[in-house]
Amino acid sequence: MFEIAELGHSLKNGEYKQQLPGLRTQLLSVQQQLAECSFSVFIVISGVDGSGKGEVINLLNEWMDPRYIRTNAFGKSSDEERERPRMWRFWRTMPEKGEIGIYAGSWYSWPIAKKVKNKINQMRLKTELHRIRQFEQELIDDGALMIKCWLHLDKATQKKRFKELEKNPQTRWRVTKRDKKHLKTYNQFIQVAETVLKTTSSVDSPWLIVGSHNGRYRNLTVGQHVLQRISHHIEQQRKHRKTDLELFSSISGMANQGCLFATLDLSKNLSEKVYSKKLAFYQGKLGLLAREAHKRKISSILVFEGWDAAGKGGAIRRLTHAMDARNYQVIRVAAPTDEERLHHYLWRFWRHLPRAGKVTLYDRSWYGRVLVERVEGFASKMEWLRAYSEIVNFEEDLVEHGIVLLKFWLHIDKDEQLQRFTEREKISYKRYKITEEDYRNREKWQDYELAANEMFGRTSNHSAPWVLVEANDKRFARIKVIKKYCEILEEKLDT
Amino acid sequence: MFEIAELGHSLKNGEYKQQLPGLRTQLLSVQQQLAECSFSVFIVISGVDGSGKGEVINLLNEWMDPRYIRTNAFGKSSDEERERPRMWRFWRTMPEKGEIGIYAGSWYSWPIAKKVKNKINQMRLKTELHRIRQFEQELIDDGALMIKCWLHLDKATQKKRFKELEKNPQTRWRVTKRDKKHLKTYNQFIQVAETVLKTTSSVDSPWLIVGSHNGRYRNLTVGQHVLQRISHHIEQQRKHRKTDLELFSSISGMANQGCLFATLDLSKNLSEKVYSKKLAFYQGKLGLLAREAHKRKISSILVFEGWDAAGKGGAIRRLTHAMDARNYQVIRVAAPTDEERLHHYLWRFWRHLPRAGKVTLYDRSWYGRVLVERVEGFASKMEWLRAYSEIVNFEEDLVEHGIVLLKFWLHIDKDEQLQRFTEREKISYKRYKITEEDYRNREKWQDYELAANEMFGRTSNHSAPWVLVEANDKRFARIKVIKKYCEILEEKLDT
Repeated sequence: MFEIAELGHSLKNGEYKQQLPGLRTQLLSVQQQLAECSFSVFIVISGVDGSGKGEVINLLNEWMDPRYIRTNAFGKSSDEERERPRMWRFWRTMPEKGEIGIYAGSWYSWPIAKKVKNKINQMRLKTELHRIRQFEQELIDDGALMIKCWLHLDKATQKKRFKELEKNPQTRWRVTKRDKKHLKTYNQFIQVAETVLKTTSSVDSPWLIVGSHNGRYRNLTVGQHVLQRISHHIEQQRKHRKTDLELFSSISGMANQGCLFATLDLSKNLSEKVYSKKLAFYQGKLGLLAREAHKRKISSILVFEGWDAAGKGGAIRRLTHAMDARNYQVIRVAAPTDEERLHHYLWRFWRHLPRAGKVTLYDRSWYGRVLVERVEGFASKMEWLRAYSEIVNFEEDLVEHGIVLLKFWLHIDKDEQLQRFTEREKISYKRYKITEEDYRNREKWQDYELAANEMFGRTSNHSAPWVLVEANDKRFARIKVIKKYCEILEEKLDT
Repeated sequence: MFEIAELGHSLKNGEYKQQLPGLRTQLLSVQQQLAECSFSVFIVISGVDGSGKGEVINLLNEWMDPRYIRTNAFGKSSDEERERPRMWRFWRTMPEKGEIGIYAGSWYSWPIAKKVKNKINQMRLKTELHRIRQFEQELIDDGALMIKCWLHLDKATQKKRFKELEKNPQTRWRVTKRDKKHLKTYNQFIQVAETVLKTTSSVDSPWLIVGSHNGRYRNLTVGQHVLQRISHHIEQQRKHRKTDLELFSSISGMANQGCLFATLDLSKNLSEKVYSKKLAFYQGKLGLLAREAHKRKISSILVFEGWDAAGKGGAIRRLTHAMDARNYQVIRVAAPTDEERLHHYLWRFWRHLPRAGKVTLYDRSWYGRVLVERVEGFASKMEWLRAYSEIVNFEEDLVEHGIVLLKFWLHIDKDEQLQRFTEREKISYKRYKITEEDYRNREKWQDYELAANEMFGRTSNHSAPWVLVEANDKRFARIKVIKKYCEILEEKLDT
C-alpha cells in the first residue's frame, strides 16, 4: 500500500519556488469562495512520526487565511472530555460551515494507538474504524468535505529524519521520547495503518498517501490536493442542489405498518388518591436512586416527545421534583440558533451532553428531524431519511459511554388535545402556551402519526427504548414516566 | 447583623399551605413575562451549612418552570476551568436574557472559604469582594437582576439540624465530613460572612438575610422575595428605557486631549532587504519564545485593532507564521451571533479565552464597544461609557491569571487607506475585502479618531499596554508587531 509513496518522489527547489505563488493565490481564492458556501471542510493530517505533519499544518495556515481556519490539536483529554463519549471533543471543535478545520491528531489517534500497543484486537479495531466511517459519512451527508492526508516515510528515512532533527539545536525539541519509542514499533504501526487506510477510504472520504521523503514534494502535493478537493466540492455543491431533489423525490417512506398508537389503551387512569400515594412513593424512590447514580457518576439522558399539550412539561416537573436541582438540566429544544444552523444538526445536542453523574432532560429533541422537520418540510426527504441511522449511531455512542438513555412519547388523542387547548385558554397563566401554530399542527395530525410510527420502528432498540405513555390521564402518565425511570436506574445500578 | 435572623421567625403549616398556591401561580406568571424581557436573573443562594440551601433551590425549581431555569452547582473546578481566570466558570454558565440562573455555590465561595481557612488576610478578602461588586455591577448595568439570599442559622440550631439529619437514614448522606468540620469553624465563618455581606450589599444588589430556623418561613420568604424582585424589575425596565435616554444624552464624552496619532511618524519604513532580514530574525526568535511559553503554560492574548485596510490580517499572518498552528487560534470579531446577543457583550470574548499555554489572536475585539458601536450608535452612550471600566476589569482578570496581553493599533492615514482600497479593487482575490461600508466608514474618520484616542487614554496601562503601530509602511508595521511581542514574551519568561 505504501510502496508508491516510498519511490522517493522529489521536487527541486527551483520548481517548488516556481509553482508555489500560483498555488497560494488559488488557495486563498477558493478559501474566499468557501466562506460563502454552506459546508465545512475537514482536513485530517495524519501519518508516520517525523514525516512533517506539523510543518504541513503550519504551511496550510500560512498559505491560506488563518482567520478562517480552526486548527485542532488533541493531546491528553481534559476531565470534562473524559466524562463524555469519546467523540465529544471532536464535535465541540467542529468548523462552522464556510470554514476549514485542520486536525492534528483526530478520531484516528485512539484506535491506532490502542492497536499498536495491542490494547485492542483486530476485530475491535475494525469495529472502531467502521464507526469512524459512519461518523465521517454523516458529516459528508451534511455537505462537509473530508480531506485526509497520510504522510508516509519508510523506516530508514524516519530514523535518519530523527537524527537530523536531533543534531540541530533549533529542532531538537521536536524529537520526543515518544517518537523514539515509536521508532521501535514502526513495523507494527505500518501494519495497523494499512488496515486503517483500507477500511476508512471511500469515494467521498479517500486517503491521500503522500511520500514525505522530500519536504517540498510533500508540501506541494498536500497543497494541491487541498486546492483541488475544495474547488471540486464547491462546483459539485452548485450542481448537486438540483440532483438532490430529482434523486429523492421518488423515494417513498416506509410502508405504513399499522399504527402503534392503536395498541395503547388511553382510558387508563388513576384516581387522585392512588396518584398521590404512588407519586410520593416513586418520587421517594427516585430520589434515592438518583442520588446513588450521581454518586456512582452514572449520567442520564431523558428525551420527551409527544403531541402538543400531551403534558411533557408536567411530567418533567414531577420527575425533577425528586431530583437535586444541582444535578440536572432541562434543555428546551426550539428553533436552532444561528450558530447551531452552521453545524450538523446533531451538534446542538452533543453540546449539552451531561458530565459524569449529571442528568439532561430534553424537552423535544433530535427527533425533531424526523417529526416536525419532516412534516413541515424543514428537512429534505434525503435529510430526514438519513437521520434514522444518524440518530441510532448517536444514541449508541451515548449508551456505550454508560449513559442511561430513555425516550418517552406522551400520547393523547385528538379530542383530548382540543379539550386541553380550550382549557388552557381559560387559565390566564397558561394561555401563553397556546398559539395559532398549535391549531395548525392539529390539521397535520395524520402526517405526524405516520412520522411518529416510522420513528418508533426505526429507532427503538433494547439499549435505547421508546416508552409510549398513555397520557389522556395526566396522573397515569406521570406515574408511568417516573416508574419507568426508576426501573431503568435500578437495573443499571444493579449491574 | 444576623440578630434579626436569629429571632426565630416561624410559620405554621396551615398558613404556609394557605399562602403557597398564590405564590406559585404568581411566580409562574412573572417567569412567563420574564421570558419576553431582555434581561437575565441571577439568584445566589448562600449561607450557613445545614440551613437548607439545597432545599430552597429545589423548591424554586419546583415552583417555577425548570425549563427556563439554569441551576449551577460548582464543586471542584475542572482542569479546563483551572487553566483560565477564576471567573471563567461563571461566565460560561450564565443564563441567557429572559432566563433565570440559580447559583448553588457562586463567586462568593472562593473568598469565603479562603478567609475562613486563613489562607488570605482581611485586606485580600476586601479586594476580592470589591471585584465581586464590580462583576455584579457590570451584569446589573447590562440590565441583569441580582437576587442574593443568605440563609442563616445560629450555632446551636446548626448543631441540632445536623443531628436530626444524621438520625434519619434518608437524610444522613446530607451531612458530610466537611459539614462537621465547618461546625467547628462556625464563629469564624460568621465573622467572614459579616464582612462579605456588608461589603457586597448595594442598592442594586442587596443581600436578603433569611432566618432558617423554620423551613416554611425560610421557603416562603425566599419565594416572595424572588417574586417581588422580579416583578419590580420587569416594571422598572419598562419605565427605565426612557429615563436612560434622558439621563445620558446630556453627558458628553471626554474632552479631546489632543490626538495621539499626531505623534506618530508615518514615514517610518523598511526596505525590502532590511525587512526580509529582520523578519527572518524575529520570526526565528518568536518561534523559540513561543515554544518556551507553551512549554511553561503561559498563554497570550493579542488584540488587533486599527483602521480598515491598515494591515491587521497581514500582521497576524506574519506572527502566526512563526508559531505552531496547533497552539494558536484566530478569532474574527464581526457582528455577534444571536446567542451572543443574549448575553453581556463581554461574554463572547470570555468564551474564547485560551487554555494554558495557548494563544488567542483577536482580529478586532471587545474594543468594538467603544469604537464601531459607539460611532455607529449600536451601543447607547451609557453603554459605551461604562465599557471603559468593564474592559479594564476584564483585562485585569486576564493579566492576574498570568496571561500575556498585548493590544495593537495599526495606524495609517486617510490617503494611504484610499490608495489601499483602490489597489485591492484591482486584485481579484483581494477584491472581496472592499465593500461599500468601507467607504462609508471613511466619512466618519474624525469620529473614529476621537473614539480611538479616548480609548487609548482610558484603557492603556502598564500590564495591558496599547502599542500604536505606524503602518503606512506594511513592512515596518509587521516588524514592530513581531518585535514587540518578542520583547513582552522575553520579559515574561525572564521573571
